[in-house]
Amino acid sequence: MSGATVDRVELNDLLEDGLAAVERAMLAVTDSDVDILRDASRHILDAGGKRIRPRLLLLTYLALGGRDVDYVSKPAAAIELMHTASVVHDDINDHGILRRGRPSVNALWGRTFALLTGDFLFTAVYELMAPYHDLNIDLAKAATALVEGETLQASAVKNNAFTREAYMQIIALKTAALFRAASTIGAKLARASQTETNELADFGFNLGLAFQIVDDILDLVQNEAQLGKSSGIDIPQGRGVAVALDGSNGSGGTNVIDPVATIRQKLMEGDTIGKAREQAHLLIDSAMTNLTILDDSAAKSALATLARQVVERDK
Amino acid sequence: MSGATVDRVELNDLLEDGLAAVERAMLAVTDSDVDILRDASRHILDAGGKRIRPRLLLLTYLALGGRDVDYVSKPAAAIELMHTASVVHDDINDHGILRRGRPSVNALWGRTFALLTGDFLFTAVYELMAPYHDLNIDLAKAATALVEGETLQASAVKNNAFTREAYMQIIALKTAALFRAASTIGAKLARASQTETNELADFGFNLGLAFQIVDDILDLVQNEAQLGKSSGIDIPQGRGVAVALDGSNGSGGTNVIDPVATIRQKLMEGDTIGKAREQAHLLIDSAMTNLTILDDSAAKSALATLARQVVERDK
Repeated sequence: MSGATVDRVELNDLLEDGLAAVERAMLAVTDSDVDILRDASRHILDAGGKRIRPRLLLLTYLALGGRDVDYVSKPAAAIELMHTASVVHDDINDHGILRRGRPSVNALWGRTFALLTGDFLFTAVYELMAPYHDLNIDLAKAATALVEGETLQASAVKNNAFTREAYMQIIALKTAALFRAASTIGAKLARASQTETNELADFGFNLGLAFQIVDDILDLVQNEAQLGKSSGIDIPQGRGVAVALDGSNGSGGTNVIDPVATIRQKLMEGDTIGKAREQAHLLIDSAMTNLTILDDSAAKSALATLARQVVERDK
Repeated sequence: MSGATVDRVELNDLLEDGLAAVERAMLAVTDSDVDILRDASRHILDAGGKRIRPRLLLLTYLALGGRDVDYVSKPAAAIELMHTASVVHDDINDHGILRRGRPSVNALWGRTFALLTGDFLFTAVYELMAPYHDLNIDLAKAATALVEGETLQASAVKNNAFTREAYMQIIALKTAALFRAASTIGAKLARASQTETNELADFGFNLGLAFQIVDDILDLVQNEAQLGKSSGIDIPQGRGVAVALDGSNGSGGTNVIDPVATIRQKLMEGDTIGKAREQAHLLIDSAMTNLTILDDSAAKSALATLARQVVERDK
């Protein structure tokens, strides 16, 4: 598909329409007759969030000539719900009490209902995607990768094996795979060529890696009020980019010896965070190269802006 | 589709081939590179289980003239994995330590990995079903119903509102919906008519209701060695058929006043269990009526036998 190019104003209108449709789709599919599931889903969905995955899908679709943002909003909603489901389950395992500036589902409804709400959001993904035949395998594989990444992370922490290699594998699976699914699905919905689809898939993947690295840096340097979620939890849990990149042979075991504050101070004084930021910037450079396959357009510029925001954001 | 009728021996061969293919499909899709997910999945899959849902799907398919049991084995595997995922998460919420005669995933790997293993099995369902385009919506809706049923159950227990009506709604959602999906998908794969599909869907639904009632009776009257899973947990948790059917106004609150043993004794002496058994038999009668849409065949007889076994089993 190759529609007429839209200007910046038209693009913003299409993007805003698409994002509004994403919100409606997420609320509609989680409108259960079971109060707790509906209320807990709304609680976390109404809190907002960056919606970077739906944005990525919509902008990829628009950059490749797609125009039916309403049709595309359901897969975009499915991807955001998948992320939301994993966040709800994460907060059980990490005892996170703050999420998107609100108490976590776990904190408000307790573990049993948080577990079931996460499951429910995941079944909602499945329902939303059912009509999008050929795209199910892309999202299913990303879902499996996400769970594998979370499991490797928990396992690396438990075994004091949070090395740099483990870290890169973990963030590829738990974060970048879903970003790649978002851009891949956006490209396929726009009937992009195989080459275009591959480049945009890589764009999403690189963006996802950079996003997670920056997320982990922010966990270290920002406080909860700024982030709107429980922060500073990576070091005590022996994980995250700083633990992986610091000089202490990549083991998370340091937290057993030193108090968290001391480690944090040490990391802030060293060049660990600087190295991590540099890595994120290199990944965004790669992502920008992936974009060169696209003709110039307002949507292409918006994808580039999105990529820059990923490394420049402070929450 | 309407294939030549197979005799009893041929039917058994096809069913055994199909069930063996189901096992292979479940092991293949859970063969993760992540050790814990692969090992925990194998742990629970190798323990066996009744496989009643795949049997129901395969026999429905065969009764309606289908013959390609290998093709059908993947949706059948998906349904069994969906059930298995819910069982793994149940054992977290119920603190179940025994399942299918083995320690539960929760007991062996701990809560975090049990939660992730359940999530992983669910993503495996999604992957398995991706190529079966028109069937995804049936299974997705059953998945949502399952989670809604589990949530209503946990909610009814918490609020001391485990009434007879709540019980029937809960077992319809948490169990019968997936049985219905199994027979519906079996019928659709055999290209059955709408009328045939509807009757077989009802057959599965009635069978599922009866199955859960009998399961709850067995939880009450059998011990763990016989069941191979944690038993006697319904009464202390204020739920199950006995709590719903007993004379004490359907509230689960009785367990606060009386010790579990006393309640159990009371239920065994009264006609609560007799009433529940009667209800299960009535449901099986309805299921038998649903089967009258089918021409006589070895597969039809096997479906009738399956239904009788559901009410006559002792584990």
